[in-house]
Amino acid sequence: MKDMQIRFSGSGGQGLILSARILAAALAGEGRFVAQSQAYEPTSRGGLSRSDLVISDREVEYPLATRLDAVVILDQVAVAASAGLLGPETLAIVDESNVKEPPKDAGHIVSLPVTARAREIGNARVANIVALGALAELTEIIDPDTLRGKMLALVPERFRDLNAEAFDAGREMAREAETV
Amino acid sequence: MKDMQIRFSGSGGQGLILSARILAAALAGEGRFVAQSQAYEPTSRGGLSRSDLVISDREVEYPLATRLDAVVILDQVAVAASAGLLGPETLAIVDESNVKEPPKDAGHIVSLPVTARAREIGNARVANIVALGALAELTEIIDPDTLRGKMLALVPERFRDLNAEAFDAGREMAREAETV
Repeated sequence: MKDMQIRFSGSGGQGLILSARILAAALAGEGRFVAQSQAYEPTSRGGLSRSDLVISDREVEYPLATRLDAVVILDQVAVAASAGLLGPETLAIVDESNVKEPPKDAGHIVSLPVTARAREIGNARVANIVALGALAELTEIIDPDTLRGKMLALVPERFRDLNAEAFDAGREMAREAETV
Repeated sequence: MKDMQIRFSGSGGQGLILSARILAAALAGEGRFVAQSQAYEPTSRGGLSRSDLVISDREVEYPLATRLDAVVILDQVAVAASAGLLGPETLAIVDESNVKEPPKDAGHIVSLPVTARAREIGNARVANIVALGALAELTEIIDPDTLRGKMLALVPERFRDLNAEAFDAGREMAREAETV
């Protein structure tokens, strides 16, 4: 399979580094090499959170994204951070209510009520898992059921049902978006 | 403060990425910028696990270590991975029983019974936290008590006591090693 570059981005506290870590672990379980990187800013700044994955069939030691195949954006603050990494082949999955101005240079933009749906399920904090489900459904990165299983193994047991529901909701809203 | 580069390394399942994440989050809480990177290998290969931190007072977008100030090595398999990144100023904290041949090019080597102590405390899986405590004690990266507080906030509640004990044991064995 070809190399892929994926970014999860939003604001601090949205759990996007966890989403990236779950995807990385699931891909490693499928025999792939993944380099992951993230930046932590001083907490006092609030602001941007992002985690990147570079996925390959060979060892990858360079974890910096150069051209994203897919990017999840859950907060407006994260849009500018990906400028220069997007192109005609980039799929951007953006939060419908938090991202009023999606990136202009992504070839495909899918706007989904990620956070709103998470809140409906019971907790805005599972927006990261809703987004993960949507990403799995909209791309060929990994089999969604494989990813779901790994996700359930990595989240705390008492939040397992909540996260399962979040993941399935993400897949479902992505399927509906596809058919528009 | 000057920029610092830190690596946690060992074999898969030793929880070293969590150690790095805890340190990164604690440093961000102290107003510093941290870039973190790690590589996931196909699970079937077992083998190396490592996570690097580049710590700065300014934004750091390049998360790759070039010269380590400190490296934690909990498994022999990880020694070769840091070749070329060590020098006279590098502090290497190595597991006494798992690392029979410490790196030759680290200026300072402190060999500690990290995993053995974790096992005594009740679970070899907290070796990562024992190592974190030792690292905090042996370096000026961060105030050990600040790091301890962040660690306790990030580990699951039911493992809090175990991890507190592990962290304190790491600090204690580091203090004893220093006085030799």
